[in-house]
Amino acid sequence: MRAVAKAAPPLTENSLVAAIRETLAQSPRAKAMPRLRVEIGDDAAAWKPNPHHLCVITTDMLIDGVHFRLQHAGPEAAGHKALAKNLSDLAAMGAAPKLAVVALGVTADIDEPLVRGLYRGIAALAAATRCTIAGGDIVRAPALTLAITVVGEARKTRLRLRSGAQPGDVIALTGPIGLASAGLRVLDAGRERTLSAAAARNVVAAYLTPTPRLPEGSYLGTRRACRALMDLSDGLSSDLARMASASRVAAVVRREALVADPSLLEAAAVVAGIDPLDCMLNGGDDYELLAAIEPRAFRHVARGFAARFRRKLTPIGNFEEGEGGVWLQSAGKRAALPAAGWDHLRRP
Amino acid sequence: MRAVAKAAPPLTENSLVAAIRETLAQSPRAKAMPRLRVEIGDDAAAWKPNPHHLCVITTDMLIDGVHFRLQHAGPEAAGHKALAKNLSDLAAMGAAPKLAVVALGVTADIDEPLVRGLYRGIAALAAATRCTIAGGDIVRAPALTLAITVVGEARKTRLRLRSGAQPGDVIALTGPIGLASAGLRVLDAGRERTLSAAAARNVVAAYLTPTPRLPEGSYLGTRRACRALMDLSDGLSSDLARMASASRVAAVVRREALVADPSLLEAAAVVAGIDPLDCMLNGGDDYELLAAIEPRAFRHVARGFAARFRRKLTPIGNFEEGEGGVWLQSAGKRAALPAAGWDHLRRP
Repeated sequence: MRAVAKAAPPLTENSLVAAIRETLAQSPRAKAMPRLRVEIGDDAAAWKPNPHHLCVITTDMLIDGVHFRLQHAGPEAAGHKALAKNLSDLAAMGAAPKLAVVALGVTADIDEPLVRGLYRGIAALAAATRCTIAGGDIVRAPALTLAITVVGEARKTRLRLRSGAQPGDVIALTGPIGLASAGLRVLDAGRERTLSAAAARNVVAAYLTPTPRLPEGSYLGTRRACRALMDLSDGLSSDLARMASASRVAAVVRREALVADPSLLEAAAVVAGIDPLDCMLNGGDDYELLAAIEPRAFRHVARGFAARFRRKLTPIGNFEEGEGGVWLQSAGKRAALPAAGWDHLRRP
Repeated sequence: MRAVAKAAPPLTENSLVAAIRETLAQSPRAKAMPRLRVEIGDDAAAWKPNPHHLCVITTDMLIDGVHFRLQHAGPEAAGHKALAKNLSDLAAMGAAPKLAVVALGVTADIDEPLVRGLYRGIAALAAATRCTIAGGDIVRAPALTLAITVVGEARKTRLRLRSGAQPGDVIALTGPIGLASAGLRVLDAGRERTLSAAAARNVVAAYLTPTPRLPEGSYLGTRRACRALMDLSDGLSSDLARMASASRVAAVVRREALVADPSLLEAAAVVAGIDPLDCMLNGGDDYELLAAIEPRAFRHVARGFAARFRRKLTPIGNFEEGEGGVWLQSAGKRAALPAAGWDHLRRP
């Protein structure tokens, strides 16, 4: 990523999260605070308000022009996506959503139909996932801004963190990746109509109205053999590096296992600048889940997954002994795979 | 307030909240959702995850240039205020904070010391109120944006809504009002140094680093005689109108009971454009609590309050039979008091 100030070193999401953790830890009474079950750094935080209850909370901010483009998306899709991003974080913890609050920043030229549209998108996805919209805030802002917080519940045994992967574990994906970033490029080029209807629908929907993998997260979260789970919102190369680093293992991805979805291949054939491998490795905005699964149990888990969801749990490599790092292996040769996915502090 | 678009009627916070409630209620499966104990429209939403537990959740978005001015405030005060606003909403429900998540939107020119400063301000207030910072999100934004969500807990008996006021109830305030808007004007005029140190500190601190009235809210929430409670973040004229409307009563404020704090009077004497009465009636950003208290019990409650907090629970009028509306009474004459406090959709 590019530097954001001339004199200062480049400010990355990872470095800023580290600075925030440090600042919070230095707080004079940090040790007196109620203990969290899962702290800053995972997809969501979890706490146990009483012995019978495990709560999970996550928040995301989406801004027009940075995370979505209202002119592409329309208000309903923007609302859908803002909630979907949060629900995906819960899915990555194997948790079920319970309620959400919506803070909305609106520009001076916004009108009521647009706000109604946003909320229709939010309400439809909330209803489909049994999540109650509990309240919110509306303020004036320089760009349309949606900050949604979702509270969910998890059975204790379901909580799967990104730090649980072990050497030997299979790296698996709950679905095809790279479609969303292809969808964005297709929309940017105004080329939806040059694709087949099915391919256009697939890549555009992957970008505009992603499906949070809540049932899949819940399923994997209850498999003992699933040792780590996270969502792929920032792209495989960045998110896999985070899982490898948190779990203190190295990740090796087999190039041959990364099979591009037919819709992604079609988009790449029609629209210039879409490289399927680059989309799969570095394209953000995919909301499939990334799992680490005990190798001996993988076939059993994958069979159960396929029977339940009629989609494949795709193995793409294995974790190895190491201290973080991601490798791409092709025809027996390995090359380091740099984290080149979405960084939230990159300039729009 | 001014119209926000030429053709459309002026978009107000109240009208937009009504549109949002309607849109959510029309959602196809709205009836299948888990029931909330308190819905959209109060300071915070509450739900009961199990019989032993009542959770309260609230969210607020603050934007540089709209809700604070980083150049006045500095990062620590901005962080403090963003959290204080949410904590005040919990105070208004008689709830105690448990944990918070912070979504932060940063501009391209932000640096790490600024982010550390924001979090120091957040962490200090969180520690002082026993609230754990549980996680968050960082994104690129066109203006520094802080969206904080706080989850708290309440004993069931403590929950006091804005809809509980009854005819005859005393309208009471937990502290002096109008100081924050005077503080903003003093800062805008660059006149802090022309006030006495104590007055400058009082008005500037009221604006920059307000104190959420958590112990006071908890105390009033446990008094049976306290029938309604809310915070005064948008200004007395607007917030009292909301309580009157939600409770289906009329509010009558005695002009003589609105005694300006000495610091407010001093600021008005020194800085042009500060009208003490206007600050008290319409100045936003006060975080004192507004309570409706059963008239026969008022003296008893006020005595207990004074003994506990060494500050006065100030009666400023009474509720009457009616269907909303606020009146200002002076020397036996009444005039309708328009809601002229802060509207979140007013242009910055």
